[in-house]
Amino acid sequence: MLVAHRSGAAARDVRTATDAADATWLDLYNPTEDEIALAAQITGLTIPRRDDLDEIESSSRLFMKDDSVYLSTPLVRRREDDFTVTPVGFVLAPHILVTVRFADYSSFATAAARLAEGKERISGDEVAVLLLEAVVDRLADILEHMGTTLDSLSRDVFGVPAPQRANAANRLRRLLRRVGRSGDLASALRDSLLGLERISIYISENKKHDLSPKLMARLKTIGRDIASLNDFVAQTMNKVQFLLDATLGFISIDQNDGMKLLTVVSFVGVAPTLIAGIYGMNFKVMPELNWHYGYAYALGLITVSAVLPMIWFWRRGWFGAT
Amino acid sequence: MLVAHRSGAAARDVRTATDAADATWLDLYNPTEDEIALAAQITGLTIPRRDDLDEIESSSRLFMKDDSVYLSTPLVRRREDDFTVTPVGFVLAPHILVTVRFADYSSFATAAARLAEGKERISGDEVAVLLLEAVVDRLADILEHMGTTLDSLSRDVFGVPAPQRANAANRLRRLLRRVGRSGDLASALRDSLLGLERISIYISENKKHDLSPKLMARLKTIGRDIASLNDFVAQTMNKVQFLLDATLGFISIDQNDGMKLLTVVSFVGVAPTLIAGIYGMNFKVMPELNWHYGYAYALGLITVSAVLPMIWFWRRGWFGAT
Amino acid sequence: MLVAHRSGAAARDVRTATDAADATWLDLYNPTEDEIALAAQITGLTIPRRDDLDEIESSSRLFMKDDSVYLSTPLVRRREDDFTVTPVGFVLAPHILVTVRFADYSSFATAAARLAEGKERISGDEVAVLLLEAVVDRLADILEHMGTTLDSLSRDVFGVPAPQRANAANRLRRLLRRVGRSGDLASALRDSLLGLERISIYISENKKHDLSPKLMARLKTIGRDIASLNDFVAQTMNKVQFLLDATLGFISIDQNDGMKLLTVVSFVGVAPTLIAGIYGMNFKVMPELNWHYGYAYALGLITVSAVLPMIWFWRRGWFGAT
Amino acid sequence: MLVAHRSGAAARDVRTATDAADATWLDLYNPTEDEIALAAQITGLTIPRRDDLDEIESSSRLFMKDDSVYLSTPLVRRREDDFTVTPVGFVLAPHILVTVRFADYSSFATAAARLAEGKERISGDEVAVLLLEAVVDRLADILEHMGTTLDSLSRDVFGVPAPQRANAANRLRRLLRRVGRSGDLASALRDSLLGLERISIYISENKKHDLSPKLMARLKTIGRDIASLNDFVAQTMNKVQFLLDATLGFISIDQNDGMKLLTVVSFVGVAPTLIAGIYGMNFKVMPELNWHYGYAYALGLITVSAVLPMIWFWRRGWFGAT
Amino acid sequence: MLVAHRSGAAARDVRTATDAADATWLDLYNPTEDEIALAAQITGLTIPRRDDLDEIESSSRLFMKDDSVYLSTPLVRRREDDFTVTPVGFVLAPHILVTVRFADYSSFATAAARLAEGKERISGDEVAVLLLEAVVDRLADILEHMGTTLDSLSRDVFGVPAPQRANAANRLRRLLRRVGRSGDLASALRDSLLGLERISIYISENKKHDLSPKLMARLKTIGRDIASLNDFVAQTMNKVQFLLDATLGFISIDQNDGMKLLTVVSFVGVAPTLIAGIYGMNFKVMPELNWHYGYAYALGLITVSAVLPMIWFWRRGWFGAT
Ligand SMILES: [Mg+2]
Ligand SMILES: [Mg+2]
Ligand SMILES: [Mg+2]
Ligand SMILES: [Mg+2]
Ligand SMILES: [Mg+2]
Ligand SMILES: [Mg+2]
Ligand SMILES: [Mg+2]
Ligand SMILES: [Mg+2]
Ligand SMILES: [Mg+2]
Ligand SMILES: [Mg+2]
Ligand SMILES: [Mg+2]
Ligand SMILES: [Mg+2]
Ligand SMILES: [Mg+2]
Ligand SMILES: [Mg+2]
Ligand SMILES: [Mg+2]
Ligand SMILES: [Mg+2]
Ligand SMILES: [Mg+2]
Ligand SMILES: [Mg+2]
Ligand SMILES: [Mg+2]
Ligand SMILES: [Mg+2]
Ligand SMILES: [Mg+2]
Ligand SMILES: [Mg+2]
Ligand SMILES: [Mg+2]
Ligand SMILES: [Mg+2]
Ligand SMILES: [Mg+2]
Ligand SMILES: [Mg+2]
Ligand SMILES: [Mg+2]
Ligand SMILES: [Mg+2]
Ligand SMILES: [Mg+2]
Ligand SMILES: [Mg+2]
Ligand SMILES: [Mg+2]
Repeated sequence: MLVAHRSGAAARDVRTATDAADATWLDLYNPTEDEIALAAQITGLTIPRRDDLDEIESSSRLFMKDDSVYLSTPLVRRREDDFTVTPVGFVLAPHILVTVRFADYSSFATAAARLAEGKERISGDEVAVLLLEAVVDRLADILEHMGTTLDSLSRDVFGVPAPQRANAANRLRRLLRRVGRSGDLASALRDSLLGLERISIYISENKKHDLSPKLMARLKTIGRDIASLNDFVAQTMNKVQFLLDATLGFISIDQNDGMKLLTVVSFVGVAPTLIAGIYGMNFKVMPELNWHYGYAYALGLITVSAVLPMIWFWRRGWFGAT
Repeated sequence: MLVAHRSGAAARDVRTATDAADATWLDLYNPTEDEIALAAQITGLTIPRRDDLDEIESSSRLFMKDDSVYLSTPLVRRREDDFTVTPVGFVLAPHILVTVRFADYSSFATAAARLAEGKERISGDEVAVLLLEAVVDRLADILEHMGTTLDSLSRDVFGVPAPQRANAANRLRRLLRRVGRSGDLASALRDSLLGLERISIYISENKKHDLSPKLMARLKTIGRDIASLNDFVAQTMNKVQFLLDATLGFISIDQNDGMKLLTVVSFVGVAPTLIAGIYGMNFKVMPELNWHYGYAYALGLITVSAVLPMIWFWRRGWFGAT
Repeated sequence: MLVAHRSGAAARDVRTATDAADATWLDLYNPTEDEIALAAQITGLTIPRRDDLDEIESSSRLFMKDDSVYLSTPLVRRREDDFTVTPVGFVLAPHILVTVRFADYSSFATAAARLAEGKERISGDEVAVLLLEAVVDRLADILEHMGTTLDSLSRDVFGVPAPQRANAANRLRRLLRRVGRSGDLASALRDSLLGLERISIYISENKKHDLSPKLMARLKTIGRDIASLNDFVAQTMNKVQFLLDATLGFISIDQNDGMKLLTVVSFVGVAPTLIAGIYGMNFKVMPELNWHYGYAYALGLITVSAVLPMIWFWRRGWFGAT
Repeated sequence: MLVAHRSGAAARDVRTATDAADATWLDLYNPTEDEIALAAQITGLTIPRRDDLDEIESSSRLFMKDDSVYLSTPLVRRREDDFTVTPVGFVLAPHILVTVRFADYSSFATAAARLAEGKERISGDEVAVLLLEAVVDRLADILEHMGTTLDSLSRDVFGVPAPQRANAANRLRRLLRRVGRSGDLASALRDSLLGLERISIYISENKKHDLSPKLMARLKTIGRDIASLNDFVAQTMNKVQFLLDATLGFISIDQNDGMKLLTVVSFVGVAPTLIAGIYGMNFKVMPELNWHYGYAYALGLITVSAVLPMIWFWRRGWFGAT
Repeated sequence: MLVAHRSGAAARDVRTATDAADATWLDLYNPTEDEIALAAQITGLTIPRRDDLDEIESSSRLFMKDDSVYLSTPLVRRREDDFTVTPVGFVLAPHILVTVRFADYSSFATAAARLAEGKERISGDEVAVLLLEAVVDRLADILEHMGTTLDSLSRDVFGVPAPQRANAANRLRRLLRRVGRSGDLASALRDSLLGLERISIYISENKKHDLSPKLMARLKTIGRDIASLNDFVAQTMNKVQFLLDATLGFISIDQNDGMKLLTVVSFVGVAPTLIAGIYGMNFKVMPELNWHYGYAYALGLITVSAVLPMIWFWRRGWFGAT
């Protein structure tokens, strides 16, 4: 999809060069080869492809070519409990901003809406700053939501589970998966923030003379916001790590309970079974077998041999755990 | 609730604008829409809402609007063994301090009491500093209390438990929950301290020309106190992590004991049961069955087959552990 | 193998000194003693041996001798799922570049191809920069590939395994091996990056006056790329560590499931076996044995004694886990 | 206890103000209310109480009041295998040093002895430096001793235990307790060192103009010593953490051994018991029961069914582990 | 042992002062009281004793007395798979170097050999630098060897063990011991490097005016080498930590296998044993007992009850793991 945005006007799908006349922002979303060619023809720029945007070394992520700044970063997109990370490319030409992306970021929609509502015509540079602001805002929202998620996860990990819990092991397994997903998301957010930080620094340094003081100030604010989000994500990762360790601890305790029940059962079963086996032996001479109350005596012996170890375990506190 | 404070006078509930006449501090606690509107009308300021205060990026937490400084931070409130974290908002206008909060912090009561006791009229800025001092003082108290809690937790983790302990697994589970709660509290304190640190820096930088040297010095002391508390909380988190790892270790050992008892029981039970089973077979020709002392012989065999492995385990030190 | 490279010409195997006439780059790959002697004779330089290149202190890795710069670093070579680390040596003489290596790096082939395609004659220094660029590019590719591998590993660790899975324990063991290999590779990449970073710094500092501003700029870009890759590898190692911890967690849960099944089986089996044993005792007087429906009664008792604990476990959620 | 020290004279218990005449150092140890009042009267200073000294924020630990410097820090006292941490307070008045403490530190005795032996009269400031030197010296000794303890602990953790070891689980539990105590002590030492570091910095900064260059140099040496001890304690904590992880590993292996023995026993016992059970069935027609060598045949079958799995396990190396 | 070294001459055992005439280096190895007294008399210096060298605070490890520099550090000595750490003392007097040591370091032999081979007379300072170079060189060799050890350890941890492995638990226990020893050695190397770093800095700072520019340059190179070795040892410790965690993972998996086999055995054994027990009951009326093929029917029932759970487990992939 190739869409042209301009100040104070609705976005327009671009099928021919004329559709993009006067545009300050060309946005390519999952572009086809034709769309890439069309954008290149309209702008006279090299449009980066998916492969170019997947590069990780800074010279491939941030560089100048002719008068244009080429930038890319991985960017998280979260929806409900799911998230994906795909690269986003920006080309900051003197007359236009071109973006290339592979996910349906809500921040791009927000920026487009703000641009469409705007009264006066703004430059491509200002659109880029507007877009970065929207992206950072959105990442902050994801992080806030993640903080809430972790609080609830923490309550689930350290809280006392309901006694009728359908399945304890599955509960722990689910907890561990949630912790894992949180760790993955935190790590993806850090990657996105790092990429955005480099982008905002690169723009400040390389477009110093082109940008108005007001835009420079907005870029500086973006940088400070990213720094504060970085702190937040670092603390989030520590919390995830702590929850991971604690979850492992509860798994161990759960296992401990199972082990103890097993031990009690095995212990309690051994003597009664042996006694029954003994009085099932076929020796000619076994006086007890002829006692009148021999059977009752054996049942009593069996009961006592089962109850005694139970009392022993009960006094050691091995009951009530499970 | 909307309360007005002024130097040397008791706090007063604000129901109309006149109740707030001459106030240097307006405090909104769990404010209703009406109270927010009233406070806005009285002060001419935008009163931040819960949603605004939950934002995490620095540009939403710390900013100037007109002549007023808007500040927010998450803040821990502890009572007994429980704690909550809610955001607190400050608006530092030239003529008044406005605070918005959602928990019953004892530090706010302390600051209010000090203000009420004060002889000479003090400015909103000075009230803000007074309040920050009270908050930092209170966080220090929580941390001191936490240090004591961790010492006692450490004694419980590494101490020898009483032998009649009702339930070992439950004891470990409780220990793990206490460690977890401590970790959560430490992490919440760090968030609060980080927020307060940014607030004190932001005020110093943006009100440099408005504040007297004496207030600036008090702000600097607040900054140093926060730094020392940060060190303390970092060491606390290391202790919590260490206790977590050690608790996991004792869980493993406890499990080890259970496992060994189980092994001994299974080992000891196998041979006697088998012997009884053998002499319970129905073969026509089984010489022992006809021996006069065959039964006694079998009982002896059973006893020996049980005692021998017991001795073997006893010499390997598998007894006495549980 | 001893190969001579020159601008705009194909590489040539060197068997006598004349084969190397006019060469700007002499490349020794797994060199024999004869090849080392020949290279020394051609260049008038001391050619480093494997032992020299295995040294780790910086004075052995980076030094000047006469007018030449001697450099070495460990370098990763990855092919499919496998990787090796061997040292690479560079001698930057005024008139020629000599390299010594023990693995078939694709980056060396890339640099050789670029040199062969070049139109104008370039200096040994420029070849060295070209080679470093190719090496850093290749390391970036390995890291990108590793990022993808970790994403898929993360999906395998946290994903729900197919129910018909051939062998859960083997699955976990394979996961752990993959995590381990990733950790080893990450650590090898860090070593390579550290070595390359030192090399690029050492060249910048010691050949400052020999290198053109353009080459200096390219070296600076190499340095920035290495820094960005270092960040990437650090994040990668954190991910590996996190996956390791999580894998250990799933191993524990898997074990927990096994333990619970075992406990259920042992528990359920004890009473029925004991009942059968009791009615197998040979007491003269055992009324039930003579009941007409005694056998049915016993079978019923056995069934009930097996079903009751099953219900108990079922209600505690111990079924369905495995 | 309230004791007065002066240069070249024995310490004297202070019961009235005259007992303290000419003293350069007043030392309060577990002071009663009366002793505090007496010290306050003698010196004209505010004597800090236990509660004041337990504060943790820097403005409560380090401050000037009138011309006196008030300082406090937690300080470790070790005796044999035990240690405690209590706060120590210092008041550095122009004419006298006052200390308040709640433990019987050997460093205080050392400093008192040195003072008593001194020929020429020295100032309260110099006594403070003398005392800090003695305290740092003593902490260094504790750390040296701890290094030795950790070496021996490491040998116990990684060494091969004697085969006749009374009780393996108890051995591991004791190891874990020793590791835990070491971790606690290391962490207490870090707290003490941090407090002393702040004290020495605070004195240098706030008494710059009162102290002779020689005393300033001695303070600087104290600062460097603390820095070196901080490095040492950091490495110690890493060692403790490593020993903790390794101990957990040996606990797991120990458990593994138990598990394998249990598995072998259960496996080996199943078939023989079943065979004996089968020949104990009461079917009318069971040909083997009438064989002349049926009993011998059954015993042989039982033996083979026990030995075969044993061989199988033996070949898999499951024996010899315990 | 007390040995005198001088340039261009063989080392000589010192029994009287004349044996040491003209010496530039006096080396005390496990010195007796007499040797210490003799060295003190020859040099006019205070010779440090073992107790002095065991001190850890910097003021005891590095100080000037009269014109001499006193230095000490712990130093690793490795031989085969074993290592020890003992302190080494250096006294750098204007006219002579004195060393005190308690282990047979190969680096000391190397330095002595170089000195003996030297043509022109060199100063005690230069001998000290020569010795430091030899020591750092040797530590680098130990680290290189350790890198190789860790690679092989990594292969053993992550590699597939031979199926006929004598004893899996013992294999893991041995792995854990090797990991532990590596961690201990890495930590000892770090201590040695830290000590040497401080020594080289202390000499540079305190003998600035005595040392020739060439010696100063050699000291600077030593410092850079130590820095690079510090990086190496840090990475080594991370690898050890990672191997430790991974080894714990394989221990868990091994245990998991044992647990599953145990569960299968218990599960499979329960039903057959119960069936045999049921047909061993002595009820008067048990129709099956009188069936002609009752025995065969029972054996069939037993077989089916054993095979069914086996199929169930086989389909869940619980076989083949061990
Ligand atoms: Mg963490
Ligand atoms: Mg962590
Ligand atoms: Mg961590
Ligand atoms: Mg952690
Ligand atoms: Mg951790
Ligand atoms: Mg820690
Ligand atoms: Mg930690
Ligand atoms: Mg830790
Ligand atoms: Mg940690
Ligand atoms: Mg851990
Ligand atoms: Mg850990
Ligand atoms: Mg990590
Ligand atoms: Mg970890
Ligand atoms: Mg980690
Ligand atoms: Mg980690
Ligand atoms: Mg880690
Ligand atoms: Mg981690
Ligand atoms: Mg961990
Ligand atoms: Mg550590
Ligand atoms: Mg560690
Ligand atoms: Mg740890
Ligand atoms: Mg640690
Ligand atoms: Mg650690
Ligand atoms: Mg660790
Ligand atoms: Mg590590
Ligand atoms: Mg680690
Ligand atoms: Mg670690
Ligand atoms: Mg570590
Ligand atoms: Mg690690
Ligand atoms: Mg660890
Ligand atoms: Mg770990």
